[in-house]
Amino acid sequence: MASLKNILIGKPLKNEALSGEKMGVVWGLPILASDAISSVAYAGQQILIVLLPALGALAFTQLGFITAATVVLLAILVLSYRQTIDNYPNGGGAFVVAKENLGVIPGVVAGAALTVGYIMTVAVSVASGVEQVTSVFSALRPFEVPISVLLVLLLMVGNLRGIRESARIFGVPTYAFVFGMLVMMAVGAYQILSGKTGDVPDIQPTASGLATPLIILTLQAFSSGCSALTGVEAVSNAVPSFRNPPTKYAKTVLVLLAVIATVLLAGTAFLAFGYHPTAGGESPALIMQLAQSVFGHGFMYYYIMVSTFLILILAANTAYTGFPVLVSVMAREGYAPRQLSMRGDRLSFSNGIMLLSAASILLLIFFRAKVEGLIGLYAVGVFISFTLSQAGMLMRWIKHRGKHWLPKAIINGTGALVTTAVVAVVSIFMFAKGAWIVVFLIPLLILLMLRVKRHYTAVSKQLRVTEEMFVTLDISKDHYRNRVIVPMASINQASIRALRYAKTISDNVTAFSVATDEEAENKLRTRWNKLRTDIPYVIKYSPYRKVVDPLLEFIKSAEYDYRKGDMITVILPQFSVHKAWNALLHNRTRVYIEKQLLRHKHIVVAVMPFQLKDDKAALGDDEYID
Amino acid sequence: MASLKNILIGKPLKNEALSGEKMGVVWGLPILASDAISSVAYAGQQILIVLLPALGALAFTQLGFITAATVVLLAILVLSYRQTIDNYPNGGGAFVVAKENLGVIPGVVAGAALTVGYIMTVAVSVASGVEQVTSVFSALRPFEVPISVLLVLLLMVGNLRGIRESARIFGVPTYAFVFGMLVMMAVGAYQILSGKTGDVPDIQPTASGLATPLIILTLQAFSSGCSALTGVEAVSNAVPSFRNPPTKYAKTVLVLLAVIATVLLAGTAFLAFGYHPTAGGESPALIMQLAQSVFGHGFMYYYIMVSTFLILILAANTAYTGFPVLVSVMAREGYAPRQLSMRGDRLSFSNGIMLLSAASILLLIFFRAKVEGLIGLYAVGVFISFTLSQAGMLMRWIKHRGKHWLPKAIINGTGALVTTAVVAVVSIFMFAKGAWIVVFLIPLLILLMLRVKRHYTAVSKQLRVTEEMFVTLDISKDHYRNRVIVPMASINQASIRALRYAKTISDNVTAFSVATDEEAENKLRTRWNKLRTDIPYVIKYSPYRKVVDPLLEFIKSAEYDYRKGDMITVILPQFSVHKAWNALLHNRTRVYIEKQLLRHKHIVVAVMPFQLKDDKAALGDDEYID
Repeated sequence: MASLKNILIGKPLKNEALSGEKMGVVWGLPILASDAISSVAYAGQQILIVLLPALGALAFTQLGFITAATVVLLAILVLSYRQTIDNYPNGGGAFVVAKENLGVIPGVVAGAALTVGYIMTVAVSVASGVEQVTSVFSALRPFEVPISVLLVLLLMVGNLRGIRESARIFGVPTYAFVFGMLVMMAVGAYQILSGKTGDVPDIQPTASGLATPLIILTLQAFSSGCSALTGVEAVSNAVPSFRNPPTKYAKTVLVLLAVIATVLLAGTAFLAFGYHPTAGGESPALIMQLAQSVFGHGFMYYYIMVSTFLILILAANTAYTGFPVLVSVMAREGYAPRQLSMRGDRLSFSNGIMLLSAASILLLIFFRAKVEGLIGLYAVGVFISFTLSQAGMLMRWIKHRGKHWLPKAIINGTGALVTTAVVAVVSIFMFAKGAWIVVFLIPLLILLMLRVKRHYTAVSKQLRVTEEMFVTLDISKDHYRNRVIVPMASINQASIRALRYAKTISDNVTAFSVATDEEAENKLRTRWNKLRTDIPYVIKYSPYRKVVDPLLEFIKSAEYDYRKGDMITVILPQFSVHKAWNALLHNRTRVYIEKQLLRHKHIVVAVMPFQLKDDKAALGDDEYID
Repeated sequence: MASLKNILIGKPLKNEALSGEKMGVVWGLPILASDAISSVAYAGQQILIVLLPALGALAFTQLGFITAATVVLLAILVLSYRQTIDNYPNGGGAFVVAKENLGVIPGVVAGAALTVGYIMTVAVSVASGVEQVTSVFSALRPFEVPISVLLVLLLMVGNLRGIRESARIFGVPTYAFVFGMLVMMAVGAYQILSGKTGDVPDIQPTASGLATPLIILTLQAFSSGCSALTGVEAVSNAVPSFRNPPTKYAKTVLVLLAVIATVLLAGTAFLAFGYHPTAGGESPALIMQLAQSVFGHGFMYYYIMVSTFLILILAANTAYTGFPVLVSVMAREGYAPRQLSMRGDRLSFSNGIMLLSAASILLLIFFRAKVEGLIGLYAVGVFISFTLSQAGMLMRWIKHRGKHWLPKAIINGTGALVTTAVVAVVSIFMFAKGAWIVVFLIPLLILLMLRVKRHYTAVSKQLRVTEEMFVTLDISKDHYRNRVIVPMASINQASIRALRYAKTISDNVTAFSVATDEEAENKLRTRWNKLRTDIPYVIKYSPYRKVVDPLLEFIKSAEYDYRKGDMITVILPQFSVHKAWNALLHNRTRVYIEKQLLRHKHIVVAVMPFQLKDDKAALGDDEYID
């Protein structure tokens, strides 16, 4: 088992290795910007799925306008988030910013919203990545779900191996994608402008599509397009992952992200305008239709497929960089289970990585790995966190002021206002298309997080040692008396070892067995009498070898007064085995008894290891049959 | 959680209740004979699926001949098994008989074969039951898999509630089914013999079917029909479940089983001959086609559907009576994990019941709940166990002789011979249809069982206290010294409680913490110094709060010599919580540390419970926000 883990996850890293796992611009850009850049692969397509049935070929002009609105929104976000990066070099993103400046509840809301956002990033990106491939190899279409699930599992394993290696593995495709797209746009633009596109189909509206008022249609299309902006916060969350000086690197990456995303979004819209692709239903992915129109079925067609697929997988990987850090920050503050704040062998937040994988796999299965089904759930969460983050920054400027605070407050204020509007628009116009799930899920998550926090607060209050207690408490004096009970299934080496240990921790030791009938009792008693010991031996009758109830009854009948604080220690053997599967054959009873006994606050369970030899070594050559 | 369990499983039963959970003929027959009787619902249909494409309407005559062969086989089995019941009033079936008379390996082979047989019984019976319903309500066809899975889960819960209640719940349907079938046969026979069947379709062979030689065809059909005989062993396995005198009741049930099964098999074959039903592909289930021909869509049509469905579910329940007993017998002898031999709260073998459920659910999902897919896997396992059981009986007569041993030996010998032939035929002619899975699975199971046994033998050898040891060992003298280490995350009430306990079990106690940096170390040290105690406090530096490695290093550096048998006790707190979900928020670190420490044979882990109050009680009204 250990060796399989080593192959999959890599050998454990030393603690000191953590500071070495940092990124510069060259590797930071492909990892953190890939989400925003890769959304070119689905944002335009999802807009067209809304517009084409209603408008026919007119949709391509409208696609241009909606893309322009998206780019303006992107610019506002980038300006806003540059200020966040400057003020929060330790990262943590919307959760930290909102909590610090707006209070606990807004912080938790942002945390819940981001959680949903990251999960959706994995699901949408992987689904879109697979869609690119099945657009080319349509024989793979029936296998979209299993392929998607497998990809998430690969991402999981990759990220369990640690941050740096992820960067190395996943760094190149972003550049490859951007390069390929630029070539496609250049060649395409030349063909379009020189009129060499051949026959472009004239697409007619369908009858059912015409029934929607234009304003609703536009806002629905815009809501779909907002999915293009969902990667922006990744950079500001991940500031501490950058090399020194981290804020400078992060801001550079953010601007480069915006420039590249703008060029590609605009270019895609222009190519769509020139080539009239179809969208929705059985249509191939938009990018692959454009690639086919521009390059035919040549090398570049497959190059576009491979690089688009890879950048989308890399975009999913963005969430693997951000999500585990987010939940670890929340866990450290008590809003999530503590085990989410623990780093694994490879210094990655293993539990967060596995949680993200499980949630996105569920979504992929539920929505049959279709981007069209998932897209409705995507933008709400992310834009709620945008709003809270920008509102938090606005409040920060108002409270702390400082140099040039007014223009900065206006920038963040504008950001907050615009993103609030987007949240409203997306919630309403995507409600029926799945946003309702998120609209219910986020409050549920908030409730859960607050409950977790409340529980940890209650626990810490009960554990607290007050100043008075320090004064009155004197643990240099003995307070407890301790009685030891050694339950034994039979008189064997493990039980003898337990008895010998028991004698070192108390003068009051009792051996205890249950017997199914008188014959069994006599047998145990006879063997016991052969043993040289002064320990008393109690045998209780229990027809079906139930141990816990007779044991508890015996403890209750004992003369010790645990209400005064006296303790009872029960010693149970634990078998250590050589082969992992052997563990299935042992310790079930021990675990069960331990669980029952530990419900009683005056009972301590001492677990004593008993190391078993390998079967072959134990049996010797004569008895061992292979 | 406890209350949900009570609703689903029922309240725990006292041990004494077990002897009250016995059956007579009235309830024993419906439970134990339902498997054999219910196979009428699929055996004939599976024979026709083989014969119809090749022979067309000629198949119906051949169905009669194959049914006759099946009935002869049934008679041989009943005669053989009556002798088994007489000689093995304690049950255990093929495993016990083969092991006792033929040796360990044949016993384990029989056990493995029976295991597979029981799992197949659940899968095939449930799949066929669902097929009856979807034959009438075709809108339910797409949901065959989820419905089947749900039914298995219901069976699981029902059986976890205990044997007697199962009998009460599931008793009536067998009688209802037999009654309904007899009415259908009487009415059908009257219609056929008086020529009132209306137009009977003439079924032509398909082109592809004609290519198979008749001998292969017949043997394939016979192999499918053998699934009708798979319930016979249930009675002899379950002898101890009968009321006194158990052997008499069991033999009566066995004969009644054979008589009823014969009448129904013959009757079904005759009705098929008269009405020419179709089979395979999208055809409805055979019984439902016959019911429609005989009754139209009247009351009796639905009556047949409901009662056939119910008896098939009851047949699946037969396996729930037999399988857990079988594996518990094997577990007691060391051939299966021990936890399979433990009775649960309701005196049922809970683990066996859950194992059976899980395995059959997997099969149902894999074969999409289709009887046609599952049938190929069915008979091999059961007939291997028949063979070994009869061969064991034969050997018993030869060895022990006794009164009239020769005719008895001839009966069992014939049984062994005939069933061996059936195993060969079914393995060969069903190989491509799924028998190959069983042919590989059974040897794998045998290997696994022998490995388990070997491991338990190796363990018991290591635990054994020899006579010399009794003489030389004197545990009235102390051998161990004991040092106690109390790891503390902070100085809180739980750690103070642990320190106080530690002092009662040793004079050599050390408190231990890890600190991420100097600041944290100073903070801990300052608080410690406020505590009135003589216990030394060691703080180790650990940048990422890893606890186990520094702790082990400290233990290794300590002056104690565990190679001489000195022990180190590490005290870890375990939080008891009020709400089940709160458990997710605690004890993960404790479990992890415990697991790491128990790899070292000189370290005892003492788990000390710390009971947390309910959040509301702990926080008080002021701090508690609902």
